[in-house]
Amino acid sequence: MSQKNKPLIFITNDDGVHAKGINELIKGIRPLGEVVVIAPDGARSGMSSAISSVNPIRLNLVRKEEDFTFYSCSGTPVDCVKLGINEILHRKPDLLISGINHGSNSAVCVIYSGTIGATLEGCILGIPSLGISLCDHSPDADFSQAVKYGKIVAEKILTGGLPKGVCLNLNVPDVPNVKGLKVACQTKGYWAKEFQKSQDANGKPVYWLTGEFVNEDAENECNDEWALNNGYAAVVPLQVDMTAHHALEKIKSWETI
Amino acid sequence: MSQKNKPLIFITNDDGVHAKGINELIKGIRPLGEVVVIAPDGARSGMSSAISSVNPIRLNLVRKEEDFTFYSCSGTPVDCVKLGINEILHRKPDLLISGINHGSNSAVCVIYSGTIGATLEGCILGIPSLGISLCDHSPDADFSQAVKYGKIVAEKILTGGLPKGVCLNLNVPDVPNVKGLKVACQTKGYWAKEFQKSQDANGKPVYWLTGEFVNEDAENECNDEWALNNGYAAVVPLQVDMTAHHALEKIKSWETI
Repeated sequence: MSQKNKPLIFITNDDGVHAKGINELIKGIRPLGEVVVIAPDGARSGMSSAISSVNPIRLNLVRKEEDFTFYSCSGTPVDCVKLGINEILHRKPDLLISGINHGSNSAVCVIYSGTIGATLEGCILGIPSLGISLCDHSPDADFSQAVKYGKIVAEKILTGGLPKGVCLNLNVPDVPNVKGLKVACQTKGYWAKEFQKSQDANGKPVYWLTGEFVNEDAENECNDEWALNNGYAAVVPLQVDMTAHHALEKIKSWETI
Repeated sequence: MSQKNKPLIFITNDDGVHAKGINELIKGIRPLGEVVVIAPDGARSGMSSAISSVNPIRLNLVRKEEDFTFYSCSGTPVDCVKLGINEILHRKPDLLISGINHGSNSAVCVIYSGTIGATLEGCILGIPSLGISLCDHSPDADFSQAVKYGKIVAEKILTGGLPKGVCLNLNVPDVPNVKGLKVACQTKGYWAKEFQKSQDANGKPVYWLTGEFVNEDAENECNDEWALNNGYAAVVPLQVDMTAHHALEKIKSWETI
């Protein structure tokens, strides 16, 4: 019988309900509480915090067991979170976990990632939220280390909470023995050489997004790329307030009032 | 004949090439320099910083005149910026402007907005970048005040630059006489009552995204909602570094090394 005081844990991702990452996460997290999963019905990589502003969203119940409910959703990762909190869950969850993503979401990837989009959305809606990514894109990646570190951080959040407006971005390196968990900053950098030009069947040009990350902060041992490249799992606290407080003073003189 | 030392200004948006907002912006900005426009071929509202990670992107030359080139693009607002900088422009632009958006992008809307997604992308790629939005959704809105304040801020940026990693989010209220320009912070808040449940033609449930903004910081005269509600244009400096630096210490004890 269901224990009424179990934590309620919301799980979503951006790789979709069939991805190995979310299913390994579910297996690892179910012992911690009541789990509700609402995840996209297919891949939504690179969807950032996109929302369905034009098309309607559909929800489909996949499976229901004791303390476990699993829905697929036609929308974006952020739509999944909004729909869950507004329409499905009987109370605000104690924890939201997004992932485990197939591939890194370190550095500036937080801006493009649907995994992190869903994590930020949980945070905006007042839920302690954690995004988890494994630095391995392959569909059959080994998620054991990512599940292990994800559970460590999830239990810390359930015990100690998070400051208002702050969520966590956990990346786990693709190595058999992760050295430990490091608290880190978002690495400065950008993507370069971003397109491969090609042709469609009619000979018309098309561009495929690709690219390589340029690390502008490579020697800084405080950032997440350094931690990952040195065999550590990296957890970065992210905030929803994007105001550049340090820049307010510089542009204050531009006011016309 | 083209003056070689004119500023190069990149324009994009998320409402698409046919929107009144971008076309009014182009008219206002063309006198300031050489203008290259690459904008989505249709509406991309709420696309945030989404990128086309699966589908190829197509580019179509719409118009070319002296010091003016106008392309439409099949991708997201961020795709437009990446494609422009990587493949089209002969040098890094002196200024990127995204907009003018039909509708406000104040407060937490920065997270969901395609207009701001493109602005942040310019910033990531090292371009002084400005997003402009008018607090009026209507297709035939009066953009004269938004163009006026957009030009004021654009000229400030061209003269004084912006700090690295910082871009600007300018919102202009829907009033005939804007009182002036105020430097502001991102208002704290979230969207509530977000869905209208309905049925498709087969009687199956669908959810339409809607909602109302809950202002958690209504009395704070420093934030952008306060400025807009009091008749001022609001400019918020945004940063690409999402690290919650104030929270690093709290979770430092979670490290396992």
